[in-house]
Amino acid sequence: MSLIVTGTIGIDTVHAPTGSAERVLGGSCSYFAAAASHLTPVRVVGAVGGDWPAEHRTMLESFRGIDLRGLEVRPASSTFAWGGRYHENMNRRETLFTHLGVLEEAPPTVPEAFRDSRFVFLANTHPAVQLDLLRRFPDRKLAVADTMDLWINIAREDLLKLFRELHGVVLNDEEAMQLTERRNAVSAARAILALGPTFVVVKKGEHGAVLVHRDGAAAIPAFPADEKQVIDPTGAGDSFAGGMMGHLAAYGATDFRGIQTALAWGTVMASFTIESFSMNRLASLDQAQIDRRMSEFRTAARVG
Amino acid sequence: MSLIVTGTIGIDTVHAPTGSAERVLGGSCSYFAAAASHLTPVRVVGAVGGDWPAEHRTMLESFRGIDLRGLEVRPASSTFAWGGRYHENMNRRETLFTHLGVLEEAPPTVPEAFRDSRFVFLANTHPAVQLDLLRRFPDRKLAVADTMDLWINIAREDLLKLFRELHGVVLNDEEAMQLTERRNAVSAARAILALGPTFVVVKKGEHGAVLVHRDGAAAIPAFPADEKQVIDPTGAGDSFAGGMMGHLAAYGATDFRGIQTALAWGTVMASFTIESFSMNRLASLDQAQIDRRMSEFRTAARVG
Repeated sequence: MSLIVTGTIGIDTVHAPTGSAERVLGGSCSYFAAAASHLTPVRVVGAVGGDWPAEHRTMLESFRGIDLRGLEVRPASSTFAWGGRYHENMNRRETLFTHLGVLEEAPPTVPEAFRDSRFVFLANTHPAVQLDLLRRFPDRKLAVADTMDLWINIAREDLLKLFRELHGVVLNDEEAMQLTERRNAVSAARAILALGPTFVVVKKGEHGAVLVHRDGAAAIPAFPADEKQVIDPTGAGDSFAGGMMGHLAAYGATDFRGIQTALAWGTVMASFTIESFSMNRLASLDQAQIDRRMSEFRTAARVG
Repeated sequence: MSLIVTGTIGIDTVHAPTGSAERVLGGSCSYFAAAASHLTPVRVVGAVGGDWPAEHRTMLESFRGIDLRGLEVRPASSTFAWGGRYHENMNRRETLFTHLGVLEEAPPTVPEAFRDSRFVFLANTHPAVQLDLLRRFPDRKLAVADTMDLWINIAREDLLKLFRELHGVVLNDEEAMQLTERRNAVSAARAILALGPTFVVVKKGEHGAVLVHRDGAAAIPAFPADEKQVIDPTGAGDSFAGGMMGHLAAYGATDFRGIQTALAWGTVMASFTIESFSMNRLASLDQAQIDRRMSEFRTAARVG
């Protein structure tokens, strides 16, 4: 079934112990779409400025499954840009700069041809914008959103309003605990369920993820990667969401078991993302590599 | 096959946001044995002092599978005692006091009847003592040891000597990374493999565990417990090791797949340990509860 993602398309500058990347393609929408496109066609809604590098478009277009009709170029505006630095252990990063650019303007327009989208992912942005975008998809069968600490702090009411209209929420463990004032990921997720959604996925980075659904709970480890495989963690969470939603849309699944299975696809796609800066590794992937990685993951994560 | 554990039998005082427990039964050997005894008979080798409370013996004796012939009481000595405080999120604790007592004296004697033990677990103590104990078991089929940051800091050479004679090492993620100066659990485990052992299990507390074996790698999440279920994390790691080794000894298994399956039993036993102070929850367990928990865990952790 049709999958759509709304979110940022950014210009990233990343410094890590493994090297640096200057003004490469980034943004939640880009990572999500690149990962999802390996599993199902994905529609993109996002805006960039006149400064958007031509090679970023070339990169996105190289993913055959990505439909860019919802990519809006605003010649007089500038593209969202982010700079960050990872510390020695790769789990912590600091933001060096954030240039909002088009994010300070009106949200992107949803093309008429995309209105019939059934699987909707609202990547992280102001929850009022997410709610507004959500309502452009009257035929939605599964609507899921990501969020971050900033909105928990400055737009809590809008966030709670959004949660009441979502099927699922995806967020980091620290954010989940901050939002709910709970001590662990499972309890935080249960508290978020009480705010409206049917399920919550708490992302824990190198420690995997937890799913709490009205019909059950699940836990999944990350792919057991060697540190040498970890080049740049940027976009891992968005790729995880892309793999998850891509699998669900591909099978038209919305139930607990379907989402549990989808977590493994999210894990596998994220495991590729971190192997390079930007979307380079995702861009070079073929189906055989994905299948092999999934098979390795199933072997590593099987219980009993 | 026969399972034996050497380690501490202690008197614990624990303060946590969930309450306090004064002078209760603790120690790595006690937690390991209590957990393992639900899966297979387990022999205990350890020493206590004349101050050891009678009710602690009653508690250990209540586990039918525990063989206490190797429990040495030294009337003129005092029992190892530990006091600790858990912080709000239960993942961090500080040691309030440590009274070494019998741990400063000669290691406990291994009864002649225990010399034929096949599965040997050396719970955390000075690595020179662990190595000395290890050699008392000439028929050992699987020898595994735990360790901690203290020995990495002050007895590194002895630790490396021990590692060369072990089949397996079990340790916490922070300790594994400290020992090897690696950034992640998988890389740290691989570096420890190069020191001699056939496999390494890195425990990550509420984030589960990673197994790196010469024949493969595995990752397992923790049981997805609600924070309300977490009363006292003390002994979770020792119970994990007890469940793991108990399963291996019960089936006589020493291969990668056997160890991977055993991780799930370790996870399940640890999930009970944290539900009470001391060994109270482990003491009240029956087979049906263990089987039900394992079934829940298999459902929660199944991949795809």
